[in-house]
Amino acid sequence: MNTFTLKGTFLDTPAPDTLRVREGYLLCENGLCAGFSETAPAGVEVLDYTGKIITPGLVDLHLHAPQYSYCGTAMDLELLDWLQQYTYPEEAHYADPAYARLGYSYFVRDLKNSATTRACIFATLHTDATLELMHQLRGAGLSAFVGKLGMDRNSPDSYREPSAAAGLAETRRWLDTCRAENTLHAGPVRPMITPRFTPSTSDEYMRGLGELAREYNVPAQSHLSENPGEIAWVAELCPGTKFYGESYSRYGLFGGGVPTVMAHCIYSPDDEAALMKQNRVMIAHCPTSNENVIAGIAPAAHYLRGGWRVGLGSDVAGGQTLDLFTVMATAVQVSKLRWRYIDQSEKPLTMVEALYMATVGGGDFWADFGEKVGLFEDGYAFDALVLDDDPLKNMRAFSAAERLERYAYLGKGKLTAKFAAGEKLL
Amino acid sequence: MNTFTLKGTFLDTPAPDTLRVREGYLLCENGLCAGFSETAPAGVEVLDYTGKIITPGLVDLHLHAPQYSYCGTAMDLELLDWLQQYTYPEEAHYADPAYARLGYSYFVRDLKNSATTRACIFATLHTDATLELMHQLRGAGLSAFVGKLGMDRNSPDSYREPSAAAGLAETRRWLDTCRAENTLHAGPVRPMITPRFTPSTSDEYMRGLGELAREYNVPAQSHLSENPGEIAWVAELCPGTKFYGESYSRYGLFGGGVPTVMAHCIYSPDDEAALMKQNRVMIAHCPTSNENVIAGIAPAAHYLRGGWRVGLGSDVAGGQTLDLFTVMATAVQVSKLRWRYIDQSEKPLTMVEALYMATVGGGDFWADFGEKVGLFEDGYAFDALVLDDDPLKNMRAFSAAERLERYAYLGKGKLTAKFAAGEKLL
Repeated sequence: MNTFTLKGTFLDTPAPDTLRVREGYLLCENGLCAGFSETAPAGVEVLDYTGKIITPGLVDLHLHAPQYSYCGTAMDLELLDWLQQYTYPEEAHYADPAYARLGYSYFVRDLKNSATTRACIFATLHTDATLELMHQLRGAGLSAFVGKLGMDRNSPDSYREPSAAAGLAETRRWLDTCRAENTLHAGPVRPMITPRFTPSTSDEYMRGLGELAREYNVPAQSHLSENPGEIAWVAELCPGTKFYGESYSRYGLFGGGVPTVMAHCIYSPDDEAALMKQNRVMIAHCPTSNENVIAGIAPAAHYLRGGWRVGLGSDVAGGQTLDLFTVMATAVQVSKLRWRYIDQSEKPLTMVEALYMATVGGGDFWADFGEKVGLFEDGYAFDALVLDDDPLKNMRAFSAAERLERYAYLGKGKLTAKFAAGEKLL
Repeated sequence: MNTFTLKGTFLDTPAPDTLRVREGYLLCENGLCAGFSETAPAGVEVLDYTGKIITPGLVDLHLHAPQYSYCGTAMDLELLDWLQQYTYPEEAHYADPAYARLGYSYFVRDLKNSATTRACIFATLHTDATLELMHQLRGAGLSAFVGKLGMDRNSPDSYREPSAAAGLAETRRWLDTCRAENTLHAGPVRPMITPRFTPSTSDEYMRGLGELAREYNVPAQSHLSENPGEIAWVAELCPGTKFYGESYSRYGLFGGGVPTVMAHCIYSPDDEAALMKQNRVMIAHCPTSNENVIAGIAPAAHYLRGGWRVGLGSDVAGGQTLDLFTVMATAVQVSKLRWRYIDQSEKPLTMVEALYMATVGGGDFWADFGEKVGLFEDGYAFDALVLDDDPLKNMRAFSAAERLERYAYLGKGKLTAKFAAGEKLL
């Protein structure tokens, strides 16, 4: 691994309400941040980005790689109809290895070119296509947890596993392959148990996935309380449960011993939210998707300020873009509408809080695996973005905080350089 | 004026729910569309954009040129505090001709580089700076109505006219200068009577502005029913009125004889909305601004489908961007949240409806002055955008409608060429 220093204006968020701005040099050693100084360390190569602002790499806690092919289209339906009409037919194509290879090559190319350095990603139910995606991500130098989906009910025959037993056998084959490739617990790209969501995963399948998560010691992810119709359906499907999250928690797939990311959590009742906090479930807040699929506005400010763990997700292709800066701006914007129409007891999010969620907030998921992510502090992964806001120049001089705000809101800046775990990707 | 044809894939909206897609050649003569054909007209220069999608130029019905200097910042306050803390101090600088010249040069440069071909623009209360803006816009080849603001109350001394009489005298001086420059009723850049909004314009001043609008035969613009606090304040300031709009209509500044644009109209009660329809007031729907300044979500779908005249506004710098494609996408997104949380009787807007509002919807304001704007039909102004979506390429082939959708949602395409009234600006 390289040893070098970056020079520029560094912005990070040691706390949700604190933007730290420092001019100087950040040393990288062995892929980690190894000291910040105001003068250049002697004898080390300097990558000079004087005048540019530099943020930690952004963490996308929730997105669907196979949906990238129709990103920015199919924006006219609510979740459940959207899945049946657009999503399942597209994801079914990934049974074909050539299709998967091509589709994922576009996704990985554009993710590499984006502001994202780490992600938690849904693949499809196909084991081999999921492995293909993992290989491509590793080849691109990105860090990710990736899930082969578990789906044995309520989707078309062409895109459903024939039984829980068959699905569990495939999941085991996938995890065994990861073990053979030494990616089960090591390396930047690792597997993550992924029941798609309760309506698509039977009790037997969910129980088996919980057992596999513990047997193989891998984390989990799924969807939670995204849409009123979905929530009512889960209540029908799981008559013994008090809330949606219990359909996961009763099988050990809701934090606690198994680190878990749950996407959305828009309509979580108090007892569900309490269990999320107790079990340290990581919330993936996906504001662009929650608009597009007509879901709603999650109480992200409440979660963030109330001690829940929360990061951001692009949720491509419910979300229209991989660009987490756009997602940050949208998180602030919709939190204002939530204040206006739903809950005036919680002030809207700030851009600093949005940056926190997109960096150390979501990055904290990696802490469950011994990695520090999301700050420019010693021992943290050297994930960094050099942002060129020259195209946004105006007559006025802007502070570093304002430059970040403009970069996120205006969408016309350029990502000049990108480092992930000390490797220069762009 | 040039005679030439454009070749490409043309998209326009003859009705709000109709996207027309045509491959072929559009002839420009004397700045107007002069015939569409599937084969090249003989003997005319062809600008060949085969493979590119081409839309009408976009119409920005509401924005504030002097606020462009802080675009994308100052996103933490509601309207009335935002005006006092950020807006008035910045606009006050435009008393200085050098400051105005420089500030407007950035604005005009970026407006020219944007998708906007026509606009209704608020300047400041300064006559000379307003004339400067008009000159720069004309020099850039853009079409616009521009307003010197009328403000004689409720702002700091440094940014308020000393009396209604003084303000009216300045307004008259401004209109007389326009007459002398032959821009009062001719040319692409013309004046528009502009009381900032009722809280900033006394009854006496408002009455005088109504008289000047009729005397000089010029249109009008202002703000309406944007924020609950503002509306309550107007009710206090104007005890005789039944609704906010009456504070304009009682002085003849609410459509009817004086063509009028009113921005926002988020909380318009039924009687106000009925008068807007009756008087053919043009509504400027500004969804990005309405999020950022924590205003709310206007019932744009209801207006559009119910027979009101409605276009889109960027409302820079309440809105964070000049890019009306972003405003189109946001209009669709927030209409979904409105459906979810406020009114399930009105389906969300579609991207086709958003394009309609951004082109012929807002363009219809020019019909009040004998110009046809917003369609690729004979006699319409030759305003056209050539959109390069090559950077958005994916494995899948997209229809023209999907390409438009992706261009608007993804924000990473490029404006390859731009024509305004037959003149090539980019």
